[in-house]
Amino acid sequence: MMNLYGYWRSSASYRVRIGLNLKGITVNHIAVNLKDGEQLTTDWTMKNPQNLVPVLELDDGILLRQSLPILEYLDAEFSAYPLLPKDPVQKANIRACANIIASEIAPLQNLRVLKKIKSAFGASQEQSAQWARHWIALGFEALETMARTADRQNDFLFGEKAGLVECVLVPQLYNARRFDVDLTPFSRLLAVEEKCLALSAFQQAHPNQQQDAPRAQSMA
Amino acid sequence: MMNLYGYWRSSASYRVRIGLNLKGITVNHIAVNLKDGEQLTTDWTMKNPQNLVPVLELDDGILLRQSLPILEYLDAEFSAYPLLPKDPVQKANIRACANIIASEIAPLQNLRVLKKIKSAFGASQEQSAQWARHWIALGFEALETMARTADRQNDFLFGEKAGLVECVLVPQLYNARRFDVDLTPFSRLLAVEEKCLALSAFQQAHPNQQQDAPRAQSMA
Repeated sequence: MMNLYGYWRSSASYRVRIGLNLKGITVNHIAVNLKDGEQLTTDWTMKNPQNLVPVLELDDGILLRQSLPILEYLDAEFSAYPLLPKDPVQKANIRACANIIASEIAPLQNLRVLKKIKSAFGASQEQSAQWARHWIALGFEALETMARTADRQNDFLFGEKAGLVECVLVPQLYNARRFDVDLTPFSRLLAVEEKCLALSAFQQAHPNQQQDAPRAQSMA
Repeated sequence: MMNLYGYWRSSASYRVRIGLNLKGITVNHIAVNLKDGEQLTTDWTMKNPQNLVPVLELDDGILLRQSLPILEYLDAEFSAYPLLPKDPVQKANIRACANIIASEIAPLQNLRVLKKIKSAFGASQEQSAQWARHWIALGFEALETMARTADRQNDFLFGEKAGLVECVLVPQLYNARRFDVDLTPFSRLLAVEEKCLALSAFQQAHPNQQQDAPRAQSMA
């Protein structure tokens, strides 16, 4: 069985958990405690020189890094429940939306960047939250526009089923709430999220449902 | 003919130019002047709600955004000179390396982020360059390790031909020099860059070779 190295609250780990659940793939979940710096140990650096989670370990020990390439790999290798459509333009649109989050939102508001703006510029807790809110809202504005341009009749962003972009969107909305982003302008994104959260694939992938989530969080 | 909206110095535009050249695809190049804020105009926001370049306009007027999805689209639709191998694990590794740059380096050192650390935290020019150097070096350390783990006999990162990861690596090395990053620890990346820069596909995609490059720069 494959191993997924992740962390309950890591949004990139959360993305891969959703994709695995949607496709019905069972893996061993192995927690890497980012809060205690476990990703910086020598053992972990051997697994991922980037000191980040998630990492997917295949049956033969091969290690795959970065959440979007992992999701693309799973989609190509496991045919059940495609995460991407066959149509090349639709596929490019979905990947673009996923990349807006994975490249232009998430990396700007992750833990190591927030730590860096504190250490380099003496940012306060509130300034650091403002910084995160700024980039999340900016990216969501573009996404909301792109989502409204797509067919609004659909339950999900680009069709009748949740796929790659929803694997990325739902964890980013989770993060947005942690930073207290005003989500009222993003009604289309929220409507899609509501449909996602009704599905067990998303429910079971939620951070609070993970074995390594602190007990108080998991009961919250 | 397709239109590529881009900017001479934008590393994401540079990536797509390399890919087009490698595959032998000719497009109209339309400059969007990021320095003058042309990407913030209403007309441009209609083309890309994210106010970023590049955008690829297909023959039928369909607009594709985000450099990696654009490169993946081109690779799927134009069979000449594949940018990605067929092997699923190799493909995942290459995409992971491309994502290290596209998600964890480039977005942290682009113009709008450097402007934001000045406006939000009063960062000086030197602090802003230090910030950029920090993230570039951190990402390159991971990439160099991953590159050294791969077969060192090859001229390029994962084989005998430049492909997707080189489309992303070479523009990031160009940016690294702009910020005066010490590149001596990254000998494998530099060796691959040297092989790339010997190819006309890379030479013709260089920022200084673009029509919208300032004359002094293009003579530099």
